[in-house]
Amino acid sequence: MKLQNDLLIRAAKGEYVERTPVWLMRQAGRILPEYRAIRNQMKSFLELVQTPQLAAEVTIQPVDILQVDAAIIFSDILVVPEAMGLPYEMLEKKGPYFPRTVASVQDVQGLRVAQPDQDMPYVMEAISLVKEQLQGRVPLIGFAGAPWTVFSYMVEGSGSKTFSKARRMLYQEEQMAHALLQKIADSTIAYLKAQINAGADLIQIFDSWAGVLPKDHYLKFSYPYIRQICQSIDEVPVTVFAKGAFFALEEMGKLPCDTIGLDWNMDVARSRQLVGEGKTLQGNLDPCALFGNQTDIIKQTEDMLQAFGPGRHIANLGHGVYPDTSVDAVKCFVDTVKEFRH
Amino acid sequence: MKLQNDLLIRAAKGEYVERTPVWLMRQAGRILPEYRAIRNQMKSFLELVQTPQLAAEVTIQPVDILQVDAAIIFSDILVVPEAMGLPYEMLEKKGPYFPRTVASVQDVQGLRVAQPDQDMPYVMEAISLVKEQLQGRVPLIGFAGAPWTVFSYMVEGSGSKTFSKARRMLYQEEQMAHALLQKIADSTIAYLKAQINAGADLIQIFDSWAGVLPKDHYLKFSYPYIRQICQSIDEVPVTVFAKGAFFALEEMGKLPCDTIGLDWNMDVARSRQLVGEGKTLQGNLDPCALFGNQTDIIKQTEDMLQAFGPGRHIANLGHGVYPDTSVDAVKCFVDTVKEFRH
Repeated sequence: MKLQNDLLIRAAKGEYVERTPVWLMRQAGRILPEYRAIRNQMKSFLELVQTPQLAAEVTIQPVDILQVDAAIIFSDILVVPEAMGLPYEMLEKKGPYFPRTVASVQDVQGLRVAQPDQDMPYVMEAISLVKEQLQGRVPLIGFAGAPWTVFSYMVEGSGSKTFSKARRMLYQEEQMAHALLQKIADSTIAYLKAQINAGADLIQIFDSWAGVLPKDHYLKFSYPYIRQICQSIDEVPVTVFAKGAFFALEEMGKLPCDTIGLDWNMDVARSRQLVGEGKTLQGNLDPCALFGNQTDIIKQTEDMLQAFGPGRHIANLGHGVYPDTSVDAVKCFVDTVKEFRH
Repeated sequence: MKLQNDLLIRAAKGEYVERTPVWLMRQAGRILPEYRAIRNQMKSFLELVQTPQLAAEVTIQPVDILQVDAAIIFSDILVVPEAMGLPYEMLEKKGPYFPRTVASVQDVQGLRVAQPDQDMPYVMEAISLVKEQLQGRVPLIGFAGAPWTVFSYMVEGSGSKTFSKARRMLYQEEQMAHALLQKIADSTIAYLKAQINAGADLIQIFDSWAGVLPKDHYLKFSYPYIRQICQSIDEVPVTVFAKGAFFALEEMGKLPCDTIGLDWNMDVARSRQLVGEGKTLQGNLDPCALFGNQTDIIKQTEDMLQAFGPGRHIANLGHGVYPDTSVDAVKCFVDTVKEFRH
């Protein structure tokens, strides 16, 4: 089905757009009372992720309520390790927890390359449902974690301020680390291909823990696997958001992808200079700016749009929207972008 | 008493040094079995901080055991809010917790500017004891948190990945935020003066949560208060370590201080260019590099020393040493720096 609003896709490709498209990372989630109502009916976050009808419903909620220019499939980056044979739980207020972690060559060998249609059919079913129900209103974004970020949870077993356990493996067991990263990358490519087959119109790769690595390790243990993924996807545009990777913006500019996401504390002009003219940039309003009053939100959003200039920009926050953000503030942000003309 | 080893002081001032001085952030702490033995005798971390004889003992341990070129007083950045009237606990494995937080103008008004000799005499007593016992072997570093970092705990009430509650106040209650920051800055200046009076030979300011702020907020809510502190101290050299403030390195170079600390993922040459020639740089080996084998640690340490070049450098890690680092690895790092000649 032809998209009625394809601003996101055109902006990603660097084509002409009448105005800047806008969506928010984590727009399908706790900010919306309508989401919380559905979430509260479920035993767990993962049950919601694995129930296609409801995952589809919360995916579409922000399109209806916030009038954003894209939907992003409601899911989680850690469905990939689960599909590889390493199950996890999502603990309330604590985040992901893996009862078993990867610590030895045997552990790596014991994992399989995910077969998406078999191991995580619920995601593709949810995507099909969303596409059916959206009727081409806006594009649907599929996503996955970058191999390094997924690796860091599989080895660490949970979130961490330093991820020193995961990073220890990079210094002590380089070969094992690469074997695991490759298995994750292979799984991720298969997973993203399946998402595209099911209907995803654009793919975003989240490298949430890019920022804990020194540059040499980033270029050795994260970047090459993101590159593999980008190279393997030519069906739809690809966005890479490597949080905290201020030190690798120049290299990000050389990835075979279309869009680079920016943190809220990355300077726009400087980032454009480092990334180069060949990519679309996505971001990067401070998520906490949405705690301000309407006048301030409008001003900050307009300042951001000015900083990026016309074209090759997808408006977003520089991080996922924080759960305690008011819906009115989010609407103000979205409306300001949609009304702005360069 | 004259210092027998004043490499740290000379390096900070940009004077000639025979070799690069070296110490580690968090060197007095859990990496040493000798520290853990003393810590295990105490009911709590804070009891140890508040017992001058033992705080002095653990301060000197790394000088004896690791042969570093400086001691740093064993204490905590959050003794300042406690002295201002906002007590806290240090929860095992969870970090600091404030039962009461700052949320209103009344809360700010209810806090006092700390009078260090009255409100936290134990720190100055510990410093005096260390100086007495060190007998001039190496300099003693005093320290405090940057006002923004201390503020973030006082408002948030605990550690946080985003500090969105503390950051919300910057957008919603700018005047209140400045009033609180000024009270913290005034307290911090008094506190650091008292540390210097008691014998501290150099002061380090830790802005641990610099990296969560967008640049405009950093320059508005953190930087000016660090500047005030730097301006008020002319007795001893001052080091500023603003973790994650890659976006403000040029401005850091203009602070009236002597040394700028660098994270492990900041590029040395680029940082030197941004900070300028007028400052000493401190850092910045990846703390996880100490999980490698001896050959790798030696190579990485030498590569780092080469990158900084001779003079205007104080060797350190780019973050506090992680608790599960082996003492032998730390010794290897220290010895490599001490044996290296440019």
